[in-house]
Amino acid sequence: MRLTKKERQSYLSQAFEQNPFLTDEEVAKKFHVSIQTIRLDRLELGIPELRERMKHMAEKKFDHVQSLSPNEVIGDVIDLQLHKSGISLLEISTEHVFERNQIARGHILFAQANSLAIALADWKVALTGNASIRFVRPVRLGEKCIAFANVAEAHDSRLHVGVQTKVQEEIVFQGDFEVYRVGDDKGN
Amino acid sequence: MRLTKKERQSYLSQAFEQNPFLTDEEVAKKFHVSIQTIRLDRLELGIPELRERMKHMAEKKFDHVQSLSPNEVIGDVIDLQLHKSGISLLEISTEHVFERNQIARGHILFAQANSLAIALADWKVALTGNASIRFVRPVRLGEKCIAFANVAEAHDSRLHVGVQTKVQEEIVFQGDFEVYRVGDDKGN
Repeated sequence: MRLTKKERQSYLSQAFEQNPFLTDEEVAKKFHVSIQTIRLDRLELGIPELRERMKHMAEKKFDHVQSLSPNEVIGDVIDLQLHKSGISLLEISTEHVFERNQIARGHILFAQANSLAIALADWKVALTGNASIRFVRPVRLGEKCIAFANVAEAHDSRLHVGVQTKVQEEIVFQGDFEVYRVGDDKGN
Repeated sequence: MRLTKKERQSYLSQAFEQNPFLTDEEVAKKFHVSIQTIRLDRLELGIPELRERMKHMAEKKFDHVQSLSPNEVIGDVIDLQLHKSGISLLEISTEHVFERNQIARGHILFAQANSLAIALADWKVALTGNASIRFVRPVRLGEKCIAFANVAEAHDSRLHVGVQTKVQEEIVFQGDFEVYRVGDDKGN
């Protein structure tokens, strides 16, 4: 059943509120309309495009990370709760892929996840100890990888961080990272 | 006991023959002489410096890799026996380290090991499946990381590769990588 424009826009506002990472493509599919229609809907509703929404979230959230410089995180940090959870976005561009097949190189996905795991640590110097990772399916040029990191265990000088990276709703990478504190810098 | 110059140079030739990865620093320490002395010895003996020795080995060995382009390996490949073993060298420079503490970023060591593991595969398209890794000790700006990769198991479309990365004789990183073939490109 096709919704009226008004109904669709009402659902749309809710959908973007619940999940700001929705792409226009995903929403268009869901409502059986063209991507162009969704873009017009967003324009009328004053909802910025995905990249802008993410930038806005990133500006709000990123100021208290201390374990690395913001430009050292691979990808754009979208959300970050120290010692809890974080989200980052990396769009796969030509410098990230193998020349021959345009598939993202393993260490790029690793770097996105690992740097996000490090960013979660509320310590001046945090390094990775062990990691166990799985490349679930190849990621291609142009795909947008959203990494979701969650702290599974937090100890005094050690965090266990689980990271799942998704393209649209599909898991493409997952990893468990053990991050440890170097030196005794608590409270500094 | 201090050796005569002649004795030292004789030992030196042998030492470099047995282990072309010896640095001048290591050899100087071993023979209790200055690095300058070792450099002069090498000059007289016609033994090129480490980087040149490695380049020379790399030129001999690297022509039959097909899973990636030579410039896609992170580090310089020194030796490579497809489906058997490989060695690469990466000198940690400023673009590899955290600004704040000059420690090499985890994904750089990962990239060196992972790209070497991929290079061992004699397939047109090879990707990483699972990996389990350990950062044994922090690596600092200027250190030379030598990664040694060995195939532990080789199946029709899957390799298990163990990688140990050392600085001087000390292990700094180790990892197990599962590399798999994509598509049926055998013999092409």
